[in-house]
Formats: sequence, C-alpha cells, structure tokens
Amino acid sequence: MTFDQWTRLVLDRVESALDHYLPAADVQPAPLHDAMRYAVLGGGKRVRPLLCHAAGELTQATPEALDAAACALEMIHVYSLVHDDMPCMDDDDMRRGKPTVHVKYDEPTALLVGDALQSQAFVTLTSDSIAATRQAPLVRELALASGSIGMAGGQAIDLASVGHALTRPELETMHRLKTGALLRASVRMGALAGEAPSAQTLAALDAYAAAVGLAFQVVDDILDVTADSATLGKTAGKDAKDGKPTYVSIIGLDASRVLAQQLRADAHAALEPFGARAQRLAELADLVVNRVS
Amino acid sequence: MTFDQWTRLVLDRVESALDHYLPAADVQPAPLHDAMRYAVLGGGKRVRPLLCHAAGELTQATPEALDAAACALEMIHVYSLVHDDMPCMDDDDMRRGKPTVHVKYDEPTALLVGDALQSQAFVTLTSDSIAATRQAPLVRELALASGSIGMAGGQAIDLASVGHALTRPELETMHRLKTGALLRASVRMGALAGEAPSAQTLAALDAYAAAVGLAFQVVDDILDVTADSATLGKTAGKDAKDGKPTYVSIIGLDASRVLAQQLRADAHAALEPFGARAQRLAELADLVVNRVS
Repeated sequence: MTFDQWTRLVLDRVESALDHYLPAADVQPAPLHDAMRYAVLGGGKRVRPLLCHAAGELTQATPEALDAAACALEMIHVYSLVHDDMPCMDDDDMRRGKPTVHVKYDEPTALLVGDALQSQAFVTLTSDSIAATRQAPLVRELALASGSIGMAGGQAIDLASVGHALTRPELETMHRLKTGALLRASVRMGALAGEAPSAQTLAALDAYAAAVGLAFQVVDDILDVTADSATLGKTAGKDAKDGKPTYVSIIGLDASRVLAQQLRADAHAALEPFGARAQRLAELADLVVNRVS
Repeated sequence: MTFDQWTRLVLDRVESALDHYLPAADVQPAPLHDAMRYAVLGGGKRVRPLLCHAAGELTQATPEALDAAACALEMIHVYSLVHDDMPCMDDDDMRRGKPTVHVKYDEPTALLVGDALQSQAFVTLTSDSIAATRQAPLVRELALASGSIGMAGGQAIDLASVGHALTRPELETMHRLKTGALLRASVRMGALAGEAPSAQTLAALDAYAAAVGLAFQVVDDILDVTADSATLGKTAGKDAKDGKPTYVSIIGLDASRVLAQQLRADAHAALEPFGARAQRLAELADLVVNRVS
C-alpha cells in the first residue's frame, strides 16, 4: 500500500468513526449536536488521527481501538479550535474553509460545543472498542495533554505573550504545551491502544513526537506568511497582524525552513530502532514538514 | 457521629484533596493555576462531594477513592459555573460570595480555567487513589453526565428557553440534564468507587438522585425569589429578571414548597432497601430541601 492509499484508508475510517462517536443530529438537544457535528465533520487535516493510527502499528493495536483513540484526539483538537476562535480569544471567523462556530451559530453555542466535545472525547475512550484495561491509561494520557500542564496551559502562555518579545526558549515552551502536548499524546495513545508498550518504545516515540510537534509549529509559522487564506482555510497573516511571536519573526524565514528540515531528520532518527514498522510515522514526519496548508 | 460532624469531616477531607489534585499555584503556567485554585478552593456547598461520600458507604469504597471521585465532580461543577458566569452566557459578576473568574481575572482566563478544570477532573479520576479497574467506569459516568446529553446539553436547552414559556415537562427535562445529571453521577460514582454495585442498587440510587436533583432545583428557584444576594453568595432574583422559566414562575411559590417536600419524601422512600447504611444519603436529602442558601 502506498502512503497515499494508507492515508485515504485511515481518513475514511476516522470520518466514519467520528460520525459514529458523535451523537446523531436528531438526538436531543438537537441544535447542540448539530453544531458539534458541524465543527468536527468534513474538514481538517486529521494529523492527530493519522499519527495515532501510525503509532498503533508498533503495538498491534486493533483498528477499532485506534479509531476510538483517534476520534477522542480529534474531538479535543476541535474543541480547542472552537474556543480559540471565540471573540474573547483570537476572534477568528474562518476555520477549515468555513465560518467558525460562533459565527455560524453564536457565542454561547461555541462555548458549549467546545465543552461538550471535551466530555465526548472521554466518553469515546471508554467505549467497548477499547479493551477495558487500556481505557484508563488512554484517558490519563489525553487528560494530561489537554489540561493546564498541556494544551490549555500553552494557550494561557500564548495569550500572555501577545505584544511581548519572547525569547526562542520561551517560544518553544509555549508550543511544546499548546500544540506539542496533543501531538505527543497522539503518538503515545496509538501505542498505548495496543499491547502495553515498553518504556524504551515510549521514549523513542516521545523523541519522534517532540521533533514532529516542533516542526508542525515551525511550518505553521512559515505558512502564515507564505500561504493565502483560501489555501489555509483560515485567515493568513494573522499572527503577524496580532503581534504574536513566531519562528519567522524570531529567527527569520530562511532559518525557519532550515529548522523544519532539521527537525524532520531528528524525527526519522528517533524511529531507527523500529525499522520498517515505523514507515508510516516516518512518512507522516515528511507530510508535516512538506505540507502547503 | 452526628450529621454535622460527618459533614464537617467530609468537607475537610475534600478541601485537602482539592488542594492536592489541583496543580500548585507555583507550577507553570502559574497565572492559570492561580485562577483555577481561586475558582475551586474555599467556597461552595460541596453538595456533589457530600453525595459521593455518602453513597460510597453502601459499597465500602475507600475514603481515598471517594475523595478523588468527589474532587473530579466538584471540578466539573466549578468549570460549569465559571463558563456559565461568562459575559456571553449569564454574565454574572458574583459567585460563592466573591467576584467571578472573568471579573477577577479576564474572559480568556475564565474560558481556559473552565477548559482545564474539565481535563483535571479526568486526570484526578485516573490517579492511583482509585483502583485500576474502577477508573474507566467512573470516567465514563462523569463524561456522560457532563457532556451534550448531560450538563452541557441542559445548559444549551436553558439558553434556548430564555424568554420562552416552557411547559412543566420541558422545564423538568432541562433541569434533569443541567443539574440533575451531575447530581445523579455524584451518587452513582460514590457507589461505583467501591465494590461493583448491583443493578438493583444503582436503580435505587437513580430514583433517590432523580428526586434529590429535582428538589435541588425547586429549592434553588424558591431561594432565587426569597433569599438575598449576600445569603446566596450570588445575585438573587436573577432568573426572574432574565425572564428564565422557574418552578416558582410556572407553579407558584406555595406549590413549589409542597413539591420540594414531596420530593424529599420520594428520596427517603427510594433509600428504604438500604436501611441504616443510607443514613447519610437520607440526611443529605433533608439538607438539600431545607437549605437557606
């Protein structure tokens, strides 16, 4: 199977699984479920689900368990986008090529969609698709990655940084939490969904995820200044306009491109112990660095 | 031990446990953790932790497991208060006798405090204080009660109802989700934290929780028109002012008082199979109905 075929297969599986794990649009309260489905379905690059499925190949996780873990990760990611786009945060009106939830519906709905998607992620991780003994470790991994010492904490640091000159280490700490923690959880949860991985396996995956997570952010910063809004599906040039520190603003565009390639090489190096079993993870590192949107 | 002594003992335990399960105020990002602790510590009636501890007596749950479950419940409850108080929701500036989080800090902080408290609840439920086999059932119970078919869903119905005349069945559906689901989870999680309860035990607890949950809301509606803001620790008369349907507005004050006493009797009746082991649950039903704030 080529990488493109594998990707299409996983994305189809995940889209069906998201449809399954989200309450149907006719379940009460229907307007809330309609808005949750609007936010989650039919858009996004699904990087976290892809990382989760790829890592699961290392521990013989079942496709069904990986689907559930991947859906939980995507629900957490989407909840964070919906809340980040709200007027009191980034105040953005375009996401994944369509109006943001608070624009399409209203602010209270956006708040509740995010809140309910977070709960639904943990409902999903405790479904029968995941073996009973694997559920709690996955819940703990996702909850730690989402919360105040993970994604939400990174968002708090990001908000406090607007208009301030951050040093590069400060910028890296912020991204390690804001986007890195959930990307790391994506890889670890894929492995944790199968046979309990060794400490050595988890350490190698952490090194891989650290490199990919940072590369993801560096490329995001590059695309914010080089791509247009239509390609990105969100407002381009927004970070510069908002005075947000980025890799491009701190080390420049050329050095950012060099850094992205270096991180790609780091990610590949971390996978060496796994040999061919880590092929999809290696290809995903390439995808993250070479993407154009 | 008298009920007062038992209550004081549990409240002291839960306060210490909340202090333990919330990240310390000097853990980075410190401003977020400071705000999370401001929202949670040193206030509130802690009805959910009390229900959880009382129900745990039926299944020999350890006090440590009940503390963790109680803290998770309280974190979810507080996150919902913080989000509900935000300007785009109820826009309230007083809660538990002090300024709400968005007033004391700012709106983005309030949003992130709520988000991070929800995550922290699931971190807490997967701590070592709870036996490994009991963690996932507790997570599922709390996630279902918090999400779109529970608390967040009830909030969505509540928002849609402002300014509309609700029928009494519609009002009950709204409250069954908005406050009832988490109160029910409090009772069930107390039982689930111990030896796996029988279906019969859970059914009796559900009947008890349904009566107590509804009584809680009826009394809230009574207090909204009969108590003052200083006693309540939040703005009195707000529901009437906002045009929100309440038991008092639909069936009147006297009928609401009769209903509260009837629900108290229903709660006691549901506990009959348990005999003296359910003493604390019976006393808590009295507390919920007879409270003055």
